[in-house]
Amino acid sequence: VTTSTQLYDSLFTAQSIRDAFSARATVQGMLDFENALARAQAQVGVIPAEHAATISAKCRAELFDVDALANAATKAGNVAIPLIKALTALVAKENESAARYVHWGATSQDAIDTGMVLQLKQTLDFFDAKLLQLSDACAVHADKHRHTIMVGRTWLQHATPITFGLKAAGWLSAIERHRTRMAECRTRLLVIQFGGASGTLASLGERGLEVAKELARELKLNVPAASWHTQRDSFVEFASVSGMLNGSLGKIARDISFMMQTEIGEAFEPAEEGRGGSSTMPHKRNPVSCAVVLSAATRLPGLVSTMLSAMPQEHERGLGGWHAEWETLAQICQITSGALEHTVFMLKGLEIDAARMRANLDITQGLIFAEAASMALATHFGREKAHQLIELACQEAISTKRHLRDVLAKDAQVSSQLNIVALEKIFDAKNYLGVAEPFIDRVLAARKQ
Amino acid sequence: VTTSTQLYDSLFTAQSIRDAFSARATVQGMLDFENALARAQAQVGVIPAEHAATISAKCRAELFDVDALANAATKAGNVAIPLIKALTALVAKENESAARYVHWGATSQDAIDTGMVLQLKQTLDFFDAKLLQLSDACAVHADKHRHTIMVGRTWLQHATPITFGLKAAGWLSAIERHRTRMAECRTRLLVIQFGGASGTLASLGERGLEVAKELARELKLNVPAASWHTQRDSFVEFASVSGMLNGSLGKIARDISFMMQTEIGEAFEPAEEGRGGSSTMPHKRNPVSCAVVLSAATRLPGLVSTMLSAMPQEHERGLGGWHAEWETLAQICQITSGALEHTVFMLKGLEIDAARMRANLDITQGLIFAEAASMALATHFGREKAHQLIELACQEAISTKRHLRDVLAKDAQVSSQLNIVALEKIFDAKNYLGVAEPFIDRVLAARKQ
Amino acid sequence: VTTSTQLYDSLFTAQSIRDAFSARATVQGMLDFENALARAQAQVGVIPAEHAATISAKCRAELFDVDALANAATKAGNVAIPLIKALTALVAKENESAARYVHWGATSQDAIDTGMVLQLKQTLDFFDAKLLQLSDACAVHADKHRHTIMVGRTWLQHATPITFGLKAAGWLSAIERHRTRMAECRTRLLVIQFGGASGTLASLGERGLEVAKELARELKLNVPAASWHTQRDSFVEFASVSGMLNGSLGKIARDISFMMQTEIGEAFEPAEEGRGGSSTMPHKRNPVSCAVVLSAATRLPGLVSTMLSAMPQEHERGLGGWHAEWETLAQICQITSGALEHTVFMLKGLEIDAARMRANLDITQGLIFAEAASMALATHFGREKAHQLIELACQEAISTKRHLRDVLAKDAQVSSQLNIVALEKIFDAKNYLGVAEPFIDRVLAARKQ
Amino acid sequence: VTTSTQLYDSLFTAQSIRDAFSARATVQGMLDFENALARAQAQVGVIPAEHAATISAKCRAELFDVDALANAATKAGNVAIPLIKALTALVAKENESAARYVHWGATSQDAIDTGMVLQLKQTLDFFDAKLLQLSDACAVHADKHRHTIMVGRTWLQHATPITFGLKAAGWLSAIERHRTRMAECRTRLLVIQFGGASGTLASLGERGLEVAKELARELKLNVPAASWHTQRDSFVEFASVSGMLNGSLGKIARDISFMMQTEIGEAFEPAEEGRGGSSTMPHKRNPVSCAVVLSAATRLPGLVSTMLSAMPQEHERGLGGWHAEWETLAQICQITSGALEHTVFMLKGLEIDAARMRANLDITQGLIFAEAASMALATHFGREKAHQLIELACQEAISTKRHLRDVLAKDAQVSSQLNIVALEKIFDAKNYLGVAEPFIDRVLAARKQ
Repeated sequence: VTTSTQLYDSLFTAQSIRDAFSARATVQGMLDFENALARAQAQVGVIPAEHAATISAKCRAELFDVDALANAATKAGNVAIPLIKALTALVAKENESAARYVHWGATSQDAIDTGMVLQLKQTLDFFDAKLLQLSDACAVHADKHRHTIMVGRTWLQHATPITFGLKAAGWLSAIERHRTRMAECRTRLLVIQFGGASGTLASLGERGLEVAKELARELKLNVPAASWHTQRDSFVEFASVSGMLNGSLGKIARDISFMMQTEIGEAFEPAEEGRGGSSTMPHKRNPVSCAVVLSAATRLPGLVSTMLSAMPQEHERGLGGWHAEWETLAQICQITSGALEHTVFMLKGLEIDAARMRANLDITQGLIFAEAASMALATHFGREKAHQLIELACQEAISTKRHLRDVLAKDAQVSSQLNIVALEKIFDAKNYLGVAEPFIDRVLAARKQ
Repeated sequence: VTTSTQLYDSLFTAQSIRDAFSARATVQGMLDFENALARAQAQVGVIPAEHAATISAKCRAELFDVDALANAATKAGNVAIPLIKALTALVAKENESAARYVHWGATSQDAIDTGMVLQLKQTLDFFDAKLLQLSDACAVHADKHRHTIMVGRTWLQHATPITFGLKAAGWLSAIERHRTRMAECRTRLLVIQFGGASGTLASLGERGLEVAKELARELKLNVPAASWHTQRDSFVEFASVSGMLNGSLGKIARDISFMMQTEIGEAFEPAEEGRGGSSTMPHKRNPVSCAVVLSAATRLPGLVSTMLSAMPQEHERGLGGWHAEWETLAQICQITSGALEHTVFMLKGLEIDAARMRANLDITQGLIFAEAASMALATHFGREKAHQLIELACQEAISTKRHLRDVLAKDAQVSSQLNIVALEKIFDAKNYLGVAEPFIDRVLAARKQ
Repeated sequence: VTTSTQLYDSLFTAQSIRDAFSARATVQGMLDFENALARAQAQVGVIPAEHAATISAKCRAELFDVDALANAATKAGNVAIPLIKALTALVAKENESAARYVHWGATSQDAIDTGMVLQLKQTLDFFDAKLLQLSDACAVHADKHRHTIMVGRTWLQHATPITFGLKAAGWLSAIERHRTRMAECRTRLLVIQFGGASGTLASLGERGLEVAKELARELKLNVPAASWHTQRDSFVEFASVSGMLNGSLGKIARDISFMMQTEIGEAFEPAEEGRGGSSTMPHKRNPVSCAVVLSAATRLPGLVSTMLSAMPQEHERGLGGWHAEWETLAQICQITSGALEHTVFMLKGLEIDAARMRANLDITQGLIFAEAASMALATHFGREKAHQLIELACQEAISTKRHLRDVLAKDAQVSSQLNIVALEKIFDAKNYLGVAEPFIDRVLAARKQ
Repeated sequence: VTTSTQLYDSLFTAQSIRDAFSARATVQGMLDFENALARAQAQVGVIPAEHAATISAKCRAELFDVDALANAATKAGNVAIPLIKALTALVAKENESAARYVHWGATSQDAIDTGMVLQLKQTLDFFDAKLLQLSDACAVHADKHRHTIMVGRTWLQHATPITFGLKAAGWLSAIERHRTRMAECRTRLLVIQFGGASGTLASLGERGLEVAKELARELKLNVPAASWHTQRDSFVEFASVSGMLNGSLGKIARDISFMMQTEIGEAFEPAEEGRGGSSTMPHKRNPVSCAVVLSAATRLPGLVSTMLSAMPQEHERGLGGWHAEWETLAQICQITSGALEHTVFMLKGLEIDAARMRANLDITQGLIFAEAASMALATHFGREKAHQLIELACQEAISTKRHLRDVLAKDAQVSSQLNIVALEKIFDAKNYLGVAEPFIDRVLAARKQ
């Protein structure tokens, strides 16, 4: 832990993605490219097989002085240039002739981009695993709480009853769409970058494509139609889908933090020794995970917009746009990893107070059934007149602090159409849940396994 | 034309998308929802068929006073509320009983969101058509200019030769990926919004899903797993894909504007009477379309970030986030439509000066073949030593203002390995294009028809 | 009302700023420039005085066909070019010789930028007026409610007591800083743009500066050090300060909407006939103004980032960046105007339920005084031990559903240090407000008049 | 160097700002707060002086295990909570009684925010120093090159002549405005955060303000009107001004990178051994500093928008918004520091090829004097007719590949008004620079010392 950012890494990011973006792992990604390149070229016959073997043996990050590489990057403009120089020197110590073939025919962006693709692949695998856990956790809530009635809230006001299961199903439906998007993104993203200086692989003559195919095979990636040094859409797509995912996680955290308000108390982040305490208030239990997830949802839009802004890159290789991607993509991966981890943690351990949910339904003395009453009367008076009639009754209930049901029972027009039994039925939440349950079932049925 | 924005509408947007987002068309979208809702409910037996017919007959935007609706929106908070009131009044004039069933069981967001989906459908259709034209135009350039040699530029410096066909193929490859993304987005986007007050369709009892299916059939949309009042990911996906598309269009415009620089003069936007003139400089021919497309690429990242920021919407219906979408989405559609139209125009009429491309290749007196020479020597001296050797020769060529080939011909080490014929071959661009042509063919082969 | 955006203009924007950015007003802004230019040049003796008078007489927007100008902008790339052409034609009808001197020595960007500055001046005036109203409204609340005790909430959890006056003072402190920022921004922003083709005013020979000074005097603007065709920082500053302002307004709206939650009910947007109703729920009173203000706070960050992204404009006049500003700046003005108007409306008519504020203080049975108790014990046991002691007492109070005071009264360690009277005092909110009132007074004292 | 970000730290950031945001420095910032707090409270008599001394002695970052703090932050939600716990333990080892008074009356946000203010103060000092260097470097170019004539370019096309001095003066004018903005921002930014749990300093009774004043004195900061836990405008202002600054630096880098294009060759980043080389092309000299500065200008808008989006923080302390600031602010400081350093480096060592500037003026065979010719004729024929006349002459010059002067000399209408001497004068650039030099002088005169 040497930077202020790292002070908060364990709060904001998942360990495995921190590892994927360590300095060493980043260097290793580029070395994986150089290694695979040498092997591919030997396979195709572009360079001698024994030299490829010598090169391969040196493509291990632990053999390099990462601090020195970082320093050298300042003048070189990127870290691949000093890395290739260092790799060449290392190979030369073993075999001068082998050293001639290091990085043969490639350009530094080939190594950097392909290394990034390998890191994104790890990230996608992590995201997929977490999304599945998230999907499972949501599905459990959706199913288990299909009859747990609570207040539906619109504009932060009581609206009509829903179930907590339906709320969880809503979260789930978005998660499932993100799983599909990640899968679609993956097919475009997991390709090698290999174009040489200007994207023609000129220095390999006519053997470029053959080498590319073998290189891709070595790295378990695909071969793109052409090199994409200045066509960055797939990186940006990854960023965008991550952005959307964080938006949906932010929605979950927002809902939970609202339900966890002292005055509402319907749901709670899992409690743990020492979690969410205050430095000064002994009674506090702060929603730490909600804070982390909401901070991620606040940060991603700006980072995604950076990726979009960096897209119009100049000619065959860009000036500044490409450089803007490096840290931005790493941050997107890390922040998203943390938000996913915290959301999974929250949802798996979420404490639900069903009694409180039930109780909150009643605090407005029946107003939450205003629409139900309105619709019941609408068949008799029409939608608009019924709406006005109930609106007046609501005002009377509020000003006289009476239950809306009692106000309606006293109303001549209403009682002419609805008797007490009918009225009681209207004010029973379980009769006013519509297709909440079929909706839950549809969402559950649409889950990918 | 009444607002400052409209002063530039014909510059920045396409007519058909302006039409799709006219005030009247927007009102019509909501009326299409109300119309389909009435018909669906009649079909399912929720409301009387004759009343549905009466409602249907009034669902035409030209029957409404759009100015009055806009005024009423101020207090109501959205335009659907006064619209439904006005529709109800209109129907009531015809038949009091029919008026009872206007907007039956729906909420205003159902009408607004579904109306927006219908507008986005038109937009997607327009985008698809333009993307096909763009794909065609790029394909023509890629194919026709597969042998048109030009300078490949990296960091805005001469790098190695490429062909203009490869540059166009690069543009094409991104366009094709965007076509796929638009298609994938479409499947998630084109669904009805129908949930009633809190997403349960409670006021329709158990008939909600039946009505939903019929409603979707009427509107040629799909039924989502559940209502998505606060799950906005599909709208945001549309915005994001549009953002990425504009990034790629911006890259095309950037390349063209750079090639069109007075000192470079390789490619030109189509000329037209009165196009791109200056108010004061008679000789100017300004790249108007590039300016429009680049301004779109500058604006989209911010608009996409707004859509992402608006995602964590509160509980069953949001407060502010939803409202932030309305104008933002409309702008995304309009700006993208203009950028597409200008790019198609530019690419269809792009003037290429192949001779100038050729001539620019020579202005560095052979330096552009430095890599070619380096690779030719690398088999003899190793990649790194060859690199140093050529680096020195380049410096000599520059300081003595001689052609690199001549410097090399005089170099003892070089001439020991390469004779004049070999050297001449190195300095012939057509021998140093690698797999530019196979890359073009791969991109062309991958086109969707 | 012809576009979907205009449907919501009366909801989202203030009338006077809509007027300032009407198509006609925008054209008038450019004509004001041309008018002042002619008069200035006559004054300085660059053009004949009688010709200037003829030109001046035609610089009235109502003489021009705005639709035709908008159409012509498509090819020209901006609206100033066709406007100057039309103005020249109009003058020529009167006097051929006078027509020679229209737009003398200027470039279209001079007219467009200066026109925009004039619109921003109107906007700043409007902002200043509204900010003063806002400051007044906050000051009234801060002063009037200096003793209105309510729950202080951190992380959306009860923390310790505050007063509503202090909350309002917090809002006020930010508003006051924004007033200062607007004033500072004004001095840099309100300058003419006048540089001619490349910023040298070459076509005026050595008279450029003289004309510039006279032109500025005519327009009641200042003369900048040099022309700023591609130095856009002052426009961006205006955008940024507007963005910050919206952030602070959003904070006010967020606080109010949270206090207005059904379960909390401490403060309410003003009620009005037909305001915030629901299309389907008769009992609803939606916080419409909060929604508008929060949507503005959601939209501004993206728009500000667009202005920032557009800054690195090319050489003497930019390609795309400048064009990206036009609509973005107009939107920033309009959205901010609406957010200001809604916030002023809300704060002036804000309904406070002081009894409910008081009641909410008690719902945790004394937990909100946990810090007070902890500090009282800290002098005896040290801060950390006292914290642990109270933490345990809080847990007991919660699990046994007792008042924290009663739990503490039963605790041997506590009662050894604090008797009943001391305990009672701790649990009286008015004894635990620290310097809330001095803070209020400091904020009030710092107000600009 | 342990993270991928750190691999590029020496490329993208300045050492002194990296140091200011090291983990240890960040911890020290919070300890400086705790130290000053203890001393202030002793001074005021809130805590015993000898205990304050004991606490002070332990407020040194090197006494703490930073890794352990980072780990503990995960559960606690921020790093101040475990830090205060560790500090208390450390003090307790020395003196149990003293430990009671650690962090007396403060909340963790007080320590974190004030620590950040101290880091921003260092950053502002660095920015000021670099801005002065930048101002000096620009001023030198503006003055030295007041007669260095070059092409003025608009829309990336040749427009009319300017001087390089004027271009540098344009850069300078923006830098000077940013210096003023930084100074204005500083007065609002450099204040302590001190409010305790909910901003009332309740636990200090009536002594809060006294302590605050003493605390501020200790830290050489000011006392704000009230605490600003959820009023974040001053942090956002710092971010915005930094964003604007990067926009202006990006403009400089864009201009330089364009002048450095192989075909243009007018200005060059300083050369250095091993700087800007290519891994594969021996002849390349890449504009590394331009790339870094442009990447900064690409990244800042998104980061600023994050700060703006985070503004509407909840009630007395926010949930997620505050957390989103930490890394974002640190990045803004670091990226800006690097962009400043690279721009200073570039401008100090910028190589100007005045001969090439001059030569480029001629490549259009006189077209660049089209406006000059047009204005010369305008006094005879009127602006519009002269414009048309020259426009035709330009077309003829282009199609016949002749110099515009020669075309005009052959034109009857033209030669009727302008003789050869007059024509020659028109085509001499030094006669068509208008007030370029007075503009330079105005900008130089407006410099702050």
